Amino acid sequence: MTTDVNGSVRNGVDTAALFATLDAVKAAPPAAAFQFRAENQWVSGTHSRGTINGFFGAGEERAHERTFQFDADHPAVLVGQDNGPTPAEFVLHALAACLTAGLANIAAARGIRLTEVRSTVTGDIDLNGILGLDPRVRNGYQRIAVRFTVKGDAPAAKLRELVEQSRARSAVYDVLTGQVPVDIEVTTD
Amino acid sequence: MTTDVNGSVRNGVDTAALFATLDAVKAAPPAAAFQFRAENQWVSGTHSRGTINGFFGAGEERAHERTFQFDADHPAVLVGQDNGPTPAEFVLHALAACLTAGLANIAAARGIRLTEVRSTVTGDIDLNGILGLDPRVRNGYQRIAVRFTVKGDAPAAKLRELVEQSRARSAVYDVLTGQVPVDIEVTTD
Repeated sequence: MTTDVNGSVRNGVDTAALFATLDAVKAAPPAAAFQFRAENQWVSGTHSRGTINGFFGAGEERAHERTFQFDADHPAVLVGQDNGPTPAEFVLHALAACLTAGLANIAAARGIRLTEVRSTVTGDIDLNGILGLDPRVRNGYQRIAVRFTVKGDAPAAKLRELVEQSRARSAVYDVLTGQVPVDIEVTTD
Repeated sequence: MTTDVNGSVRNGVDTAALFATLDAVKAAPPAAAFQFRAENQWVSGTHSRGTINGFFGAGEERAHERTFQFDADHPAVLVGQDNGPTPAEFVLHALAACLTAGLANIAAARGIRLTEVRSTVTGDIDLNGILGLDPRVRNGYQRIAVRFTVKGDAPAAKLRELVEQSRARSAVYDVLTGQVPVDIEVTTD
């Protein structure tokens, strides 16, 4: 729990710390170079286990307060054992979480108190792509739709602007709608 | 645990079921239309909780065997409470899991027994983008690197080909290196 000693906490966001972080990065732009990481270990079939802990940022090697582990798998209809969500579902979760975190930060910075933020993200995919059955079909989502419900102490237009600004500054929205160079290396011994 | 009554299970993949699924979709391509979903509820600050359960596929509404929930947050250095990984880290986890699931399926189909598959995914991001401090910097990852270790009963060249084929058929690799239309709707009442 954040203790609001100076009245700067809004929506659970310490706006003083947020603005101090912005000022620190303005003064030293290289502090904004981050590297995030995920480790993965195959278990069996389509089941694997991911581990997230260390990252680099603000000039030094860091770690989360605890190690996060997540299983991924396919459901039975996709020849898996359903030990976790599909990898593609984790992408939808990431998008919702990214837009929501940004929304809370932006609302706090603009002095808007939120009372509720919910969203549903859907991703339509034609598995003729990944199954290699139709070369005209892409492997990934053909379209993603996000439906937000946002409530707070501001007019509807202001609440909608929060979502728009969060979209405009979202890391996950960017990697889905833009293109990221992905390099793959393989070691076999 | 999959019981291998007919010797068709390899790497934990029931290859008979895998080929039967391919044949079923070949016979009825619309069965390959899937929709995955994630729900998200804002908790406080940058902390939100995602829920994954229902999906549509193979012609009907379905659900995972259990409901999966995942917290996402920012670490303290990014003005959060570290209640979960960052949304951007979930994307790296999804990529590793997708490439790994594909690799196990492809190896099974090709008759290769895997003994170990591990990977590390790193994503470099310059937060001057999402902080709005430099318009030349993108919001998302500037580059992603995947380092695989793959071991099994095949020559190194064959093991490398598994990774290459998995990349060529990966849903998550596709959405990161391609572009997905993302539509956002907002309700405020």
